[in-house]
Amino acid sequence: MPDKSDHGFKHEFAVQPGISVDFRKFSTKYTGSHFKKKKAEKHLVEDIESLSGAQELLWASARYGVLIIFQAMDAAGKDGTIKHVMSGINPQGVDVYSFKAPTLNERMHHFLWRGIQKLPARGRITIFNRSYYEEVLVVRIHQEFLAAQNLPEKKFDNEFWRLRYQEINNFERTITRNGTLVIKFFLHVSQEEQKKRFLERLEDPDKMWKFSEDDFKERRHWKKYMQAYEQMLEGTSTEWAPWYVIPADHKWFMRMAVADIITSRIHEMNLSFPVVTKKQRNHLMQIRRKLEGQ
Amino acid sequence: MPDKSDHGFKHEFAVQPGISVDFRKFSTKYTGSHFKKKKAEKHLVEDIESLSGAQELLWASARYGVLIIFQAMDAAGKDGTIKHVMSGINPQGVDVYSFKAPTLNERMHHFLWRGIQKLPARGRITIFNRSYYEEVLVVRIHQEFLAAQNLPEKKFDNEFWRLRYQEINNFERTITRNGTLVIKFFLHVSQEEQKKRFLERLEDPDKMWKFSEDDFKERRHWKKYMQAYEQMLEGTSTEWAPWYVIPADHKWFMRMAVADIITSRIHEMNLSFPVVTKKQRNHLMQIRRKLEGQ
Repeated sequence: MPDKSDHGFKHEFAVQPGISVDFRKFSTKYTGSHFKKKKAEKHLVEDIESLSGAQELLWASARYGVLIIFQAMDAAGKDGTIKHVMSGINPQGVDVYSFKAPTLNERMHHFLWRGIQKLPARGRITIFNRSYYEEVLVVRIHQEFLAAQNLPEKKFDNEFWRLRYQEINNFERTITRNGTLVIKFFLHVSQEEQKKRFLERLEDPDKMWKFSEDDFKERRHWKKYMQAYEQMLEGTSTEWAPWYVIPADHKWFMRMAVADIITSRIHEMNLSFPVVTKKQRNHLMQIRRKLEGQ
Repeated sequence: MPDKSDHGFKHEFAVQPGISVDFRKFSTKYTGSHFKKKKAEKHLVEDIESLSGAQELLWASARYGVLIIFQAMDAAGKDGTIKHVMSGINPQGVDVYSFKAPTLNERMHHFLWRGIQKLPARGRITIFNRSYYEEVLVVRIHQEFLAAQNLPEKKFDNEFWRLRYQEINNFERTITRNGTLVIKFFLHVSQEEQKKRFLERLEDPDKMWKFSEDDFKERRHWKKYMQAYEQMLEGTSTEWAPWYVIPADHKWFMRMAVADIITSRIHEMNLSFPVVTKKQRNHLMQIRRKLEGQ
């Protein structure tokens, strides 16, 4: 099927392997050159329809799986993006996992262990709402979490994090080779926009219960988080599993860009429905005649 | 939220506990007294919207889970119904499991074992596309599957099946008490309509690969299946987990009836968003002031 939806966002927002990432050069407010909100919303609807078809093909051909990872600061819009982009897709072919704080048992395993168990089977789309990348983000900021992992290492220096990136890269390479398409999004929101969204939650009686004081407290580590994200993007954006940094201050643009990239990445796999051989076809025609006679 | 959607299908199609079920009294072609296709499709869209809100509330209140079971003969429309009714719902709150032939390891466990592991957590909707009910359906028709389970029993008489019903009823009672709403659909298609749908698959080059000769062969056991279904409905439609028998020859009607019943059953739970206490509220207002000052 022709891919009418592709607006090149997958080139525009991909982090090139090996480059150095400096967020001062990444606008959180960017909305593309030729998109207004109305047009973007219409485009999102088209993308979802296209994605729905792509999912069916993915499932029918049953040769590839798709892993979509979302990482972001709180209130950047992970939940809303998953809801808006993936609603409308057959839920039978999609799994979403939200990774919360690991259990004691999970901490006693390799940091990739719990994610591995949730990887997509062939034919399926799996979404990780947060992921093993937290192991080089929140865990890097709060090293007491690392202490609770009882690792053989005692020193958590730059080399330690570099080795974690390397392990992630090797892991993603092996699953890519096995037929898993890995698409990684960092939803890039500004500290100012986060403040605005937190205040909205605090002003709406129906949303107030959602507000977590911990989320507010994490703001004090904003700079450290941004550094950890920059280094993570530098260290783990690879040819086989690139990161996309999506400007997230405008939700309507973010959602469309995410939908566009997912749809385009699946389309470029050139999947097709299983082919029925001539022999199979003849056999099916025999069954058809029997059935007609019933 | 008021429930405008409820058309009483949950009363109309529920199998009353203790009654004797005779399919000759159940039309597969029924489409209600006041529904035409166009109106039903519009109604389905409204129901899905309403269900989307209900799911959010279910998730936010995090006290109840919902287990939806679909059982039917092949081509009755399980997959299509799941796709049409549940697309549009946030995939983050919904899990769908298709139960295929059990693995060797699964067969070496209690027949409820693999289903138990997939039960919905509080706040979530889980759909079983086929389920442990296959253990009193396909397994009853093909008793060689039963032999492969290495059970202590050697005699598979009516008493054996009665005991399986009892175990299912007790199991569903215990999960209901723990906060799981159990909704069970039998999509009731006629043998004639199945033939028509099989022929459609065989005539469409894009659908041909989907056709399975085994599905065709199972038609020879149609009567046995209908008896097994009748007895299952009699034996396992309970106050706490009723079966709904949905006329399935008209897909548009079936989908609307299913959406209507699910929406209505969740609405009657009268869920509400978590309440913020006065003390919590005051605390949140302090945070708000701090945030505004940043």
